Amino acid sequence: MLTSIRRFYSIKVDGTKWKQFVPTEGNLPKGFKAGSVYSGVKRRPENLTRDLSVVVSLKPCVAVSGVFTKNSFAAAPVQLCRELLSRRRPIQALVINSACANACTGARGLEDAQVMSRTVSEVFKTQGDALVMSTGVIGQHLDMQKITGGLRELSSGALGDDYQSLLNLALGIMTTDTFPKLLSREFELPSSKAKFRLAGVCKGAGMIHPNMATMLACVLTDINISQGALDTAVSKGASSSFNAISVDGDTSTNDSFIVMASGAASGREQLTREHKDFVPFCEILSRFSQELATLIVRDGEGATKFVTVHVRGANSFNDAFQAARSIAKSSLVKTALFGQDANWGRIICALGYSGVSIVPDKVSLTLSSPQCTEELVLFKDGAPNDTNEDEASAILKNTDIELTINLGLGNSDAKMFTCDLSEDYVKINADYRS
Amino acid sequence: MLTSIRRFYSIKVDGTKWKQFVPTEGNLPKGFKAGSVYSGVKRRPENLTRDLSVVVSLKPCVAVSGVFTKNSFAAAPVQLCRELLSRRRPIQALVINSACANACTGARGLEDAQVMSRTVSEVFKTQGDALVMSTGVIGQHLDMQKITGGLRELSSGALGDDYQSLLNLALGIMTTDTFPKLLSREFELPSSKAKFRLAGVCKGAGMIHPNMATMLACVLTDINISQGALDTAVSKGASSSFNAISVDGDTSTNDSFIVMASGAASGREQLTREHKDFVPFCEILSRFSQELATLIVRDGEGATKFVTVHVRGANSFNDAFQAARSIAKSSLVKTALFGQDANWGRIICALGYSGVSIVPDKVSLTLSSPQCTEELVLFKDGAPNDTNEDEASAILKNTDIELTINLGLGNSDAKMFTCDLSEDYVKINADYRS
Repeated sequence: MLTSIRRFYSIKVDGTKWKQFVPTEGNLPKGFKAGSVYSGVKRRPENLTRDLSVVVSLKPCVAVSGVFTKNSFAAAPVQLCRELLSRRRPIQALVINSACANACTGARGLEDAQVMSRTVSEVFKTQGDALVMSTGVIGQHLDMQKITGGLRELSSGALGDDYQSLLNLALGIMTTDTFPKLLSREFELPSSKAKFRLAGVCKGAGMIHPNMATMLACVLTDINISQGALDTAVSKGASSSFNAISVDGDTSTNDSFIVMASGAASGREQLTREHKDFVPFCEILSRFSQELATLIVRDGEGATKFVTVHVRGANSFNDAFQAARSIAKSSLVKTALFGQDANWGRIICALGYSGVSIVPDKVSLTLSSPQCTEELVLFKDGAPNDTNEDEASAILKNTDIELTINLGLGNSDAKMFTCDLSEDYVKINADYRS
Repeated sequence: MLTSIRRFYSIKVDGTKWKQFVPTEGNLPKGFKAGSVYSGVKRRPENLTRDLSVVVSLKPCVAVSGVFTKNSFAAAPVQLCRELLSRRRPIQALVINSACANACTGARGLEDAQVMSRTVSEVFKTQGDALVMSTGVIGQHLDMQKITGGLRELSSGALGDDYQSLLNLALGIMTTDTFPKLLSREFELPSSKAKFRLAGVCKGAGMIHPNMATMLACVLTDINISQGALDTAVSKGASSSFNAISVDGDTSTNDSFIVMASGAASGREQLTREHKDFVPFCEILSRFSQELATLIVRDGEGATKFVTVHVRGANSFNDAFQAARSIAKSSLVKTALFGQDANWGRIICALGYSGVSIVPDKVSLTLSSPQCTEELVLFKDGAPNDTNEDEASAILKNTDIELTINLGLGNSDAKMFTCDLSEDYVKINADYRS
């Protein structure tokens, strides 16, 4: 039921290798406008410079849900969003800045986030306070003059609902990302012929790890949906998308995944949890979110590989997920993949210290790639399977790698998406602030 | 009561930067002999090539204790050692090979470890089965012809108890280590003037993380001690030494820390848990083990910094340890330290996702180095402390860095020792097997 967009971005993106992942068409769902501007918070402007983005709903949203970092040092904007969402008052706008995370900034940071929120309401004449997201360096105060200046500049007509507006929104939230991450889709639900829309943007690329990482994601839809139904759909969607990716195992202070529903699409009564269309909607939102989330992994800092760790045959989803997570986090697994080295012992080793109950003799490990037909069983029944290193190398030359681990114990499975660990990861992160 | 050795290694060690950490004198405790040989298991011989080491006690040891990896895929030699130690039969020898971990090798692997063990007893005419340690690539079978050939070659008189024998033992267990890790000390206990001796060797350098990492360590002593007393002392010693170091967060299949007591020193009755000398002995063993363990961190793959993460003011040791561990494991913290960047937000962030209860407003973070007198409070009462980046850089230029985090909640503290994450770490680990 998802309509794929098959034409892609053609303008210059830093590192042309990923340009196939940037769509060249799309637009916002009905009832939304968005845009971005360069406010000056980002100190060293590069090619695609924008650092302040706004999403406005033409009317207060029918429902807004968010999932946030579990880090104890939740940043000021995260604290503010949690408060605004718990109040259940009308929400009509979202503002996002990059280059400064407004995290670990104490009382002044919270005040800055509030001023940012209220300035949006004032400038764009929206009801209630705006949601706020920030990403960038931790521990620095926002330059509020630049932020409020930027917002006033943006008000003068730069918001739109077309492809360029969606792209600008994505460009405005980038930090070390090498390409803008955006997606849009039309969808139908079983009980009617009405069309609805989804659009989303997100950003990585370091500090990405489950339980929300500085990972910001915003998904917009025009379906008319109840608050309760959206809360459930978002919570389900996060577990198979933004909580199932890992770049470096760090969980940031600012991670936020927010979904806003304008309700502006016509053609159906409000979708509730009880309606038979609810489960299909959850699946559509999950798949859309997963597709968006995997873009972050593709653009993991320094990444050259996109790796799916699929753990099957587990006693429970939690076991499968924990095992997949342990493998996806291992620096030794990730450096071996970067080196295109079939050093599967490191994978088994990471499985072994995952904390999940394992029966070594029942475990098997298969290496494959969606980009070739070969697959190789590297480990079987607790012992090495005699394999040809050349065959393994042939598979590992692909950019997309799949590691399938069967625990041989039960019927549950889980996937984690991760990337390799390259010398460039270190370069990017050693020099990030300088 | 520890007699320091202040003269150091002067022969050429790969990377002269660490040569100050290799003592140039020392010897084995009474009652032990050791040595090593090149068996050929290590495929590409380099400067200091030995790959098979043996420790023999002239009589069966009075006590032997071991702490092993918690990895579910415990390697064959670990399985064998656990079994031998649980049987409580006489133990008189230890054999260690490098270059092949004999892990994930199924039934054949276990048989190989047993053959290795029995060959030692046969060749060196020792009672019972020998303990076995292996380190190197996971998932490959040992070349048993080379192992047994090497052992027979070694028997012909190459064992000794002098400095060179201790050095050879350390050289024989190296994998990616850039310098041999050995220490020896004389000590006294309060109740007598008798002298006792400790000697130890260990190896890193990748996959180092608490709960034992491919980290092999062997400590020898000549004190006459009861099995129960040694078990307690080793278990205490491990928590502040080999379980308190982290290089890359991976816990290996082979980690082993074995302490053997020959009982060959004269001058006292057997030391038991009830004796007033027991607590002082535990402290001496812990400090010795910690000193040995920190050598592994200094030689962490690609490491340029030695970092102590000291968490204070915690409600419990476990909280302090878990918080220190989360910071010591963070790739983002470690790359920032490599870049000499005072990006303390990453430290606070890693503390925030450690899972430990935190009251953000009570947390402070201080940066210092034992190599200079300055110290800098970077974060205080939940907010950035205005600091001078130049001062921070001056501290970060040192090789030894200390991060002190005060949680402001209780009186417990814990230390973790770690290193930075450099581009060389990735190079070493991407190419390890090729």
